[in-house]
Amino acid sequence: MRTNVIRKPYLIFLGDISSRVSAKTALGIRDWCGGDVIGQHGLPACTVDLGIPSLTPAQAALQGAGSLVIGVAPIGGRIPPAWHATLIAATRAGLDIVSGMHDRLASVPGLAEAAAAAGTALHDVRHPGLSFDAGTGRKRSGLRLLTVGTDCALGKKYTALTIARDLQAAGIKATFRATGQTGIMIAGSGVPIDAVVADFIAGAAEWLSPDNDADHWDVIEGQGALFHPAYAGVTLGLLHGSQPDALVLCHDPSRKNIDGFPGFAIPSLVTAIARYIDMARLTNPAAEMLAISLNTSTLSDGDRALVMADIRAETDLIVFDPVRDGTTELTALLKARSQSAVLQQSHPVLVEAAI
Amino acid sequence: MRTNVIRKPYLIFLGDISSRVSAKTALGIRDWCGGDVIGQHGLPACTVDLGIPSLTPAQAALQGAGSLVIGVAPIGGRIPPAWHATLIAATRAGLDIVSGMHDRLASVPGLAEAAAAAGTALHDVRHPGLSFDAGTGRKRSGLRLLTVGTDCALGKKYTALTIARDLQAAGIKATFRATGQTGIMIAGSGVPIDAVVADFIAGAAEWLSPDNDADHWDVIEGQGALFHPAYAGVTLGLLHGSQPDALVLCHDPSRKNIDGFPGFAIPSLVTAIARYIDMARLTNPAAEMLAISLNTSTLSDGDRALVMADIRAETDLIVFDPVRDGTTELTALLKARSQSAVLQQSHPVLVEAAI
Repeated sequence: MRTNVIRKPYLIFLGDISSRVSAKTALGIRDWCGGDVIGQHGLPACTVDLGIPSLTPAQAALQGAGSLVIGVAPIGGRIPPAWHATLIAATRAGLDIVSGMHDRLASVPGLAEAAAAAGTALHDVRHPGLSFDAGTGRKRSGLRLLTVGTDCALGKKYTALTIARDLQAAGIKATFRATGQTGIMIAGSGVPIDAVVADFIAGAAEWLSPDNDADHWDVIEGQGALFHPAYAGVTLGLLHGSQPDALVLCHDPSRKNIDGFPGFAIPSLVTAIARYIDMARLTNPAAEMLAISLNTSTLSDGDRALVMADIRAETDLIVFDPVRDGTTELTALLKARSQSAVLQQSHPVLVEAAI
Repeated sequence: MRTNVIRKPYLIFLGDISSRVSAKTALGIRDWCGGDVIGQHGLPACTVDLGIPSLTPAQAALQGAGSLVIGVAPIGGRIPPAWHATLIAATRAGLDIVSGMHDRLASVPGLAEAAAAAGTALHDVRHPGLSFDAGTGRKRSGLRLLTVGTDCALGKKYTALTIARDLQAAGIKATFRATGQTGIMIAGSGVPIDAVVADFIAGAAEWLSPDNDADHWDVIEGQGALFHPAYAGVTLGLLHGSQPDALVLCHDPSRKNIDGFPGFAIPSLVTAIARYIDMARLTNPAAEMLAISLNTSTLSDGDRALVMADIRAETDLIVFDPVRDGTTELTALLKARSQSAVLQQSHPVLVEAAI
C-alpha cells in the first residue's frame, strides 16, 4: 500500500510534560495547521497549555476529531506505560492514533486489538510501512522547490512551510510536501525519507511530488545536508528524486561546525551553493539556487542587518529570515515562474521568441 | 544482533537452470572462494555443471559443508515451489541456507520450523535484519580502498575482489568487504548496503570496515554511482562511511549512457574523478583517486591499447583491466602505502621529516 493519509482534525496528546521544549511537535502542529486541531489532551501531571480547548478523547471524537496525535517526544522515543490507557481509550472512542515514537504503536499491549475492533488506524509516522520503486529520473510536470541546508536542524521544514503558505496566500497553486515526522503530521501525509530503504530514497522522493499542473509549486521539506558525514546520502537521494527547479539554502550564520560533529566545518555559502546546484542538475538541468533562508535568532538587530547584507553581496541571491522577514521577494519570483510556466505551456514558441 | 557471518564451506544449489547466465552467483562463488566450496547440487532438470563434485545435501553435510547457498537468480527473485523440498531436506541434514532471493526463506512453508528443529540458520542476504547506528565520522585506523564507478554493473565487485586477492598474494594484509549479495556470499559476511534504512547508510559502511592495523587494507566493494538518478544516495553514504584513502574508478568505455536510463550521459572521467574526490574528502581529507579499472571486454586488442593509453594520458592514473591485465602496478603502489603506514606509526617524526 502506498497511501498514508492521516485523518484530520486532530486532538493533540501532551502526555505528562512540564516543559514547552518537549512540546515542539505539538506547537508545530498548532502553528502550521491550527485549523485542523480540535483540542489538546494532557494527563493529570501535564502543565503545558497550548491555549486551545482541553478535551477528552471521547469529547473530541464527538466533535468530529479524526485522530489523536502524540505531540510530545520523550527521550529515546519510547511510549511510556502511563500513556497506554489513554491511547486505548482514544482508539475505543473511534480516533486513529498518530505517533512519531521509535516504539511502534502495536507494541502497546491491547492497542492493535482495540484498533481492529474499533476499525481505526494506527499510524507510526517514523516507520513508513510503505514500499517504493527505485527512481526513474523521468521529468515530471509542475514546478518544484526543495529546501536544502548547510547542516541539519536549521529551518528547512519551517522555511518550506512558510514558502508554501505565502504562495497559497498569494493565490499561487502550491503544496507543502513533508519528508519528516512533524511535517507529515502537519501535512497529513508525506514520506519519512530517512526511514526508507536506501535503494529507494530517490524513488520515494519521486513518488512524493507526482506530476502536477504546469504552474503548481510543490514545496518540498529538505533533510540533512550534503556536507553531513552521517546523512548526506539521504540528502542526495532526496535532491535527485525531487528534481527541484528551485533550491533555497537554509543556513545559520552562528554555526561553525556540523551540529554534533565538531571536526566537520560548515562549508562556505559559495561552496554549498555550487555543490547543491551541481548535484541537482543531474535530474533537472534547469535547477537554480534562488535564495538563502537565514536563521538570525542569535543575532542583534544591528548584526543581523550587516550579516544579511554581506550574504546578499556574496551570493547575489534573495536573503531572508522566514521568522522575521516573510518571503515577499521570493514569493514574487516564484509567482513569476509559475505564470511563465503557464504561458510557456499555452504558447511555447512565443515564449522562446521572447527569450 | 550485528553479526551475520555465514557458515562455510558451501554446497551450491543450482535449482533447475539450463543457462550459465542464470548461474552468475554460483560462478562468482566458485571463482572467488572455490576453496570454500564442497560441491554443487541441481534438481533433475538442471543442465548447468560448475565442474565440481555433485553431492546431495546429506552427502555434503557428511563431508563437512556448513551451508547450502542458492547460486541462481530466477526472474523476480521468487523461490519456486519446486525448490521447497530440497531446502527443507538440506536444513534437516544440518545445513544453514543462504539466499539472495527477494522472497524470504521463512516464506517457504515448513522451512522455519525445520531450521528451528535442526538448530540451523536461514540467511536472507538481501534482507539484512541488522540494525546500525548513524555514522559518526570518526576516523578509523587502517587503510581503506573503495571501488567507485561511472555507472552500475561495470566491475566494482570484480575489481575489489581482484585487488584484495592480489594484495594478499603479495603478502599485504588485506580484507575484501562486501556490500552486495554475491559479494557477501563470497566473503561469508558483509552488509547489503542498498537494503539498509536510509538514515544508517554511512553508519553501516563505518561498521563494515572497523579499526584495523595501520598497514591493513580494507578493499570495499562499491555500489551505484554518484551520477545515477536512482542510486546516488547509496553511493554517497557508502563513500562517506568508508572513509577511503584510495579510490579506484571503474568504467566501461563502450557505455555512453547510464544503463537503463537513456537520458543520463556517463560523465567524462575527469568530471567523475573530481566529483568522487571532492565528496570523499568530507570524511577523509587524504582521499585520492589511484587508478581506473576498465572493462575492455567489448574492444579489439588494438582499440584496447589505444583506449588505455588515451585514458592514462587524460587522467595520469594507473589504468588496468582486472580481467586481462591484473593489478601489478596498483598492488605495488598499495604495498608502498601499507609500508609507509607502518613506518609512520613507529617513527612518526622521521617520516614527517622525510616528506
